[in-house]
Amino acid sequence: MTASAQFITVEGIEGAGKSSNLEAVQGFLHKAGVDYITTREPGGTPLAEDIRALLLADRSEAVSEHCELLLIFAARAQHLKTVIEPALAAGQWVLCDRFTDATYAYQGGGRGLDMQHIADLERIVQGARRPDLTLILDLPPETGIARARQQGALDRFEQEELAFFQQVRQAYMDIARSQPERCHLIDADRPMEAVRQDIINTLQERYPDLTDKRSAPPTG
Amino acid sequence: MTASAQFITVEGIEGAGKSSNLEAVQGFLHKAGVDYITTREPGGTPLAEDIRALLLADRSEAVSEHCELLLIFAARAQHLKTVIEPALAAGQWVLCDRFTDATYAYQGGGRGLDMQHIADLERIVQGARRPDLTLILDLPPETGIARARQQGALDRFEQEELAFFQQVRQAYMDIARSQPERCHLIDADRPMEAVRQDIINTLQERYPDLTDKRSAPPTG
Repeated sequence: MTASAQFITVEGIEGAGKSSNLEAVQGFLHKAGVDYITTREPGGTPLAEDIRALLLADRSEAVSEHCELLLIFAARAQHLKTVIEPALAAGQWVLCDRFTDATYAYQGGGRGLDMQHIADLERIVQGARRPDLTLILDLPPETGIARARQQGALDRFEQEELAFFQQVRQAYMDIARSQPERCHLIDADRPMEAVRQDIINTLQERYPDLTDKRSAPPTG
Repeated sequence: MTASAQFITVEGIEGAGKSSNLEAVQGFLHKAGVDYITTREPGGTPLAEDIRALLLADRSEAVSEHCELLLIFAARAQHLKTVIEPALAAGQWVLCDRFTDATYAYQGGGRGLDMQHIADLERIVQGARRPDLTLILDLPPETGIARARQQGALDRFEQEELAFFQQVRQAYMDIARSQPERCHLIDADRPMEAVRQDIINTLQERYPDLTDKRSAPPTG
């Protein structure tokens, strides 16, 4: 038996295919009969979505890097308290589109903010809460940006330079390397079906009880 | 000569008379020929005012304590970077209606948040920046609330219970006691003119060069 409700996050740069691959995870959990919710960061509650809107707005006033960092953690605090922690406490799994690894990658790696400041905020806001499993979709930023462009307008983050996304990617790879028990780096520079199968395999290996349940014949 | 542009903050619970007493400080600086700006927290820039609006809004979703704390520091980061630091660097004095002492008093004292978390955020956002002089207007919360009620609608903070404001007041008094060089506790439970005179005296003692300039006959 898997001991408790799991907190699973999906990470990756623009155009890595997060949406499709979140659906792959949802399909796996659904077939396994797991009670779960899907949510996203920044956002996930009405207030946190209002904060997200402040972050993504196109405004003449330059948003200071510390302001951006603190807004992200403000939204996260609200999301944890209102959505994530209550769901986990009630036994629901939580599947989240981006979480604190994105802050290390974008604000730490991309913008060059002090990683220790991010770690301090993580401790203040999350206490000991960390994702149980993180799927990091990896692909060259050139490919990701080209894909994102095809999908329509780019927001304030998506308009960054290529060098920015190269730093973001490197930070994600560093996280994956330093926390191999939690993080699985998935090569997303492949056809969608191959990536999807890789994700399913990762979930099956990580949660063999769920896999057994799926392959076992129905019982009375 | 006073060495550099000064950062002066005015603090106090609701109904302590911050607005009138800010005007007293402005009058003093104006007469002394000081180049200064007046600003307020949370707020002071368009983005920071948007964050202030999120904080004060009446919403059905309860704002988590950590979310509130981080929104306040997000607004502060933006305010410092965009308004306060550039003004001080240009030689302008900055007079601010509330600053980080209010966070220690309201979120720390009033809501009981971990003072160390506030100190960590202060360090991340402000570095070594602290006010040079802080005037803390003190009066019994019962008197302050009665005065604030007379002035119209109460916002989300002003609607708190009496016990909350007693804790806020105590936190302000603790700050004043522990940092006597920076903080001046002003008894605001007196007629307005007496309070105003007390503030002017404090400024004259603190900035004798300005006082000399004011009492000297015009030259040139």
